[in-house]
Amino acid sequence: MRSLLGNLLARADITINGDREWDFKVHREDVFARIIAEGSLGLGESYMDGWWECDQLDEFFHRVLKVRLDKKIPVNLPSILIYLKSSLLNMQSRQRSGKVARQHYNLGNDFYMSFLDPYNQYTCGYFKQTQDLNIAQEQKLDLICRKLQLQASDRVLDIGCGWGGFARYAAEHYGCHVTGITISDEQIDYARTFCQNLPVNILKKDYRDLNDHYSKILICGMIEHVGYKNYRKLMEIVHRNLDDNGLFLLHTIGGNTSVKYAEPWTSKYIFPNSMIPSANQLSKAMEGLFIFEDWHNLGTHYTPTLKSWFANFHRNWDQFSNQYGEKFYRMWKYYLLSSAGAFKARELQLWQIVLSKRGVPGGYLSIR
Amino acid sequence: MRSLLGNLLARADITINGDREWDFKVHREDVFARIIAEGSLGLGESYMDGWWECDQLDEFFHRVLKVRLDKKIPVNLPSILIYLKSSLLNMQSRQRSGKVARQHYNLGNDFYMSFLDPYNQYTCGYFKQTQDLNIAQEQKLDLICRKLQLQASDRVLDIGCGWGGFARYAAEHYGCHVTGITISDEQIDYARTFCQNLPVNILKKDYRDLNDHYSKILICGMIEHVGYKNYRKLMEIVHRNLDDNGLFLLHTIGGNTSVKYAEPWTSKYIFPNSMIPSANQLSKAMEGLFIFEDWHNLGTHYTPTLKSWFANFHRNWDQFSNQYGEKFYRMWKYYLLSSAGAFKARELQLWQIVLSKRGVPGGYLSIR
Repeated sequence: MRSLLGNLLARADITINGDREWDFKVHREDVFARIIAEGSLGLGESYMDGWWECDQLDEFFHRVLKVRLDKKIPVNLPSILIYLKSSLLNMQSRQRSGKVARQHYNLGNDFYMSFLDPYNQYTCGYFKQTQDLNIAQEQKLDLICRKLQLQASDRVLDIGCGWGGFARYAAEHYGCHVTGITISDEQIDYARTFCQNLPVNILKKDYRDLNDHYSKILICGMIEHVGYKNYRKLMEIVHRNLDDNGLFLLHTIGGNTSVKYAEPWTSKYIFPNSMIPSANQLSKAMEGLFIFEDWHNLGTHYTPTLKSWFANFHRNWDQFSNQYGEKFYRMWKYYLLSSAGAFKARELQLWQIVLSKRGVPGGYLSIR
Repeated sequence: MRSLLGNLLARADITINGDREWDFKVHREDVFARIIAEGSLGLGESYMDGWWECDQLDEFFHRVLKVRLDKKIPVNLPSILIYLKSSLLNMQSRQRSGKVARQHYNLGNDFYMSFLDPYNQYTCGYFKQTQDLNIAQEQKLDLICRKLQLQASDRVLDIGCGWGGFARYAAEHYGCHVTGITISDEQIDYARTFCQNLPVNILKKDYRDLNDHYSKILICGMIEHVGYKNYRKLMEIVHRNLDDNGLFLLHTIGGNTSVKYAEPWTSKYIFPNSMIPSANQLSKAMEGLFIFEDWHNLGTHYTPTLKSWFANFHRNWDQFSNQYGEKFYRMWKYYLLSSAGAFKARELQLWQIVLSKRGVPGGYLSIR
C-alpha cells in the first residue's frame, strides 16, 4: 500500500516523509490502506483525523492535480454511491436545497466575518496588481458593476446575495436599486443591517419563486449549489425576470469536464448537494435564451483568495477553537488549501460570463 | 399572399413599395407566392432574378431578423430536405469537403483581391477606433498574434490559411515560423508567392492528415466548413498537434442555437455543405481536451467588414461583369448585405476563443 501510493506521489515530485513543504508526512502507517480503500474521501477524512500532515497543503494539491494523480486511483465505492444518488434524485430540489444553507452558511456569521474582507465576499477576488484580499474584493465588485454597466436608474437582482456585500457596494457606488435574495436566515439578518439606509431589499426567497422584472441580474457564487438538473430552470427564470435589453452576469466556479456529482469529501463536509458546472452544461442550459457577450476566466485569482482566507482564519482561530474544536480546524484548513491547489493546477476555473437576451445593439465592450 | 407577407413585414417596420431605404420594392407580383412556397431559398433566388429590390439590403435584413420574422414563416420543403441530407450523410467528408473549395474559393483570386484588404483577409476585421477595412484587418491580425502570445521561437500552424495573409503578417511582425494548410489550389499558388522569402510553409493538406507538433495553432474562418459531425475530430487533431504548453485560437462565426444544416440559400449559392457552430456544439467538442482561457464576442465588427467588402466589390465590378454576369452581381450583393444585416441584428456572432491544453500557469491575460 505504502509503496503503491509512494510511487504515485513520486510522479508529482512528492516524497513520503520528505522535508519539503509539500511532502506527505505520515502520522499513522494505516493511512495508505485508508486512502486506497476510500479515495478522495479517505484522503480528506484521514487528514482531519491527524493521520498525515503537510506543511503546505495547497502545494501538495497543486502537484497532485497538475499530474492528474486523482485520475490514477481506482474509483472507489463512496464515489459510486454519490453518483447513483445524484442520478436518481434531484439533490437540489426545494426540500433538499435548504441543507447547504443549514449546514454551511448558518455556521455563524461571526465565523465567516473572521476571515472574509469587509464586504463579506465569499467568492473569488480580483487580484489585479494587488496582493491584498480587501482590495481584490473591492476590485471584483467593481468589475461586476462595470461589466453590468450599472447606472443609478438600474433595478438590479442579486440571486444568492450572501451577506449583502454586492448589494451594498452597488448601491453605494452606482446609486442603483438592488434586490438580494437568499434562503439563509443568518445571511438575511446580517445583510439587512449591512445595507441599512441604502436602496436595497433583502428577501428570503427561493429563486424558483421570482416573478418580477429587472434591468440587470447577477448570480455570483450561487449556481454551484443549484445542481445540473436545475441549470435550465434557473436560466429560464433569469430570462423571465430580465428586461429584453438587460444584462445578466454569471460568476461561477467552472469545471473542465461535465460531472453529475461533487467530489465526495467536499460534498460530505463542506457543500452538501453542490456541484461545479462545465462550459458544456452551461451553454446547453442557456441556448436559445441568451447570447454570450463575454466569457472571462479568472480561475488563478482563486488561489490567492483562498490562501488569504486561510491566513485570516488561522490568525483568528483562537476565538473559535473552543466552540468548533481541532477537527473542524483541520477540516477547514484542508478545504481552503486543497481548493487553492486545485485552482493553481488549473483543475478548476472561475468564470464571469456576461449574457444578453437579444444581443447588445452595436456589441458589448469587454472589460477586464 | 401579398397581404400575409405585408403584415409580417410591417412588424419589422418594412413597407411594401415604401420609399425608405429598407423598404421592399416589388418588381413582379408573384414574388409573394414564391417566398411563401420556398422560404429563405425563394427570397434569395427571387432577389437574384430581379423580382424585388431594396435600396439597403443590410437594413432590410437587420429589421427582419431583429424581430425574428424568419422564425414566423412556416418551415418549407427545401429546408427539410437539406436537414435530412445533413443528418443522414457526413456532408463534410473527405470527398465532399472539396466542393466548397471548388465552388467558392476557386472563383478566381483576382475576384477576391478586388474587394479584400491587402492581407486578403476573408474573415471579420477588428474595427476598434477605425472605420477603415485595411486598418481593421491589420488590427485583427495583430489581435490574434497578441492573443497567441507569438514570439520568434514559435512554430505556428494555421489550419485553413486562405491566401496566406496571417502567415505573412505573423512572420513579418513576430518573426515566427508559420505552416499554413489549405485544400484550394488557387489559394496555395497565391499564398506561396505572397509569403516568399519569409519563414512560411504553405502545404496542400487535409486537416485530418496533420501529424506534427506546434507551439501555437490558429483556426480562423475554417471551422464553418467542417460540419458538426467533425468538430470533435478536428479538436482531437488540434490537441494531438499542439505542444502541452501551447495555445490554440479559434476564430469563428457563431450561432445562437445549435443547427445541423446551413440556411438553404447560403448553402446552395455561397458555401455548400457549411454550417455555423453553436457555443454548445463547440464546448462539447472541446470538453476534456481544452480549457477555455478567453471567449471574446466581436460579432458586431462583421457588419462594417461586410459592408466594406460590398463597397469594394461594387466599385470594382466593371472588371468582372462580362465574366460573371448580372445575376452573379445580385447573388453576391445579397450574400454580403444579408449577412451584414444578420450580424447587426445579433442573429450571428463572431467568436475568438483562446484555449490551452492544461491551463496557462498563473492564468491567461485577456487582451482586447
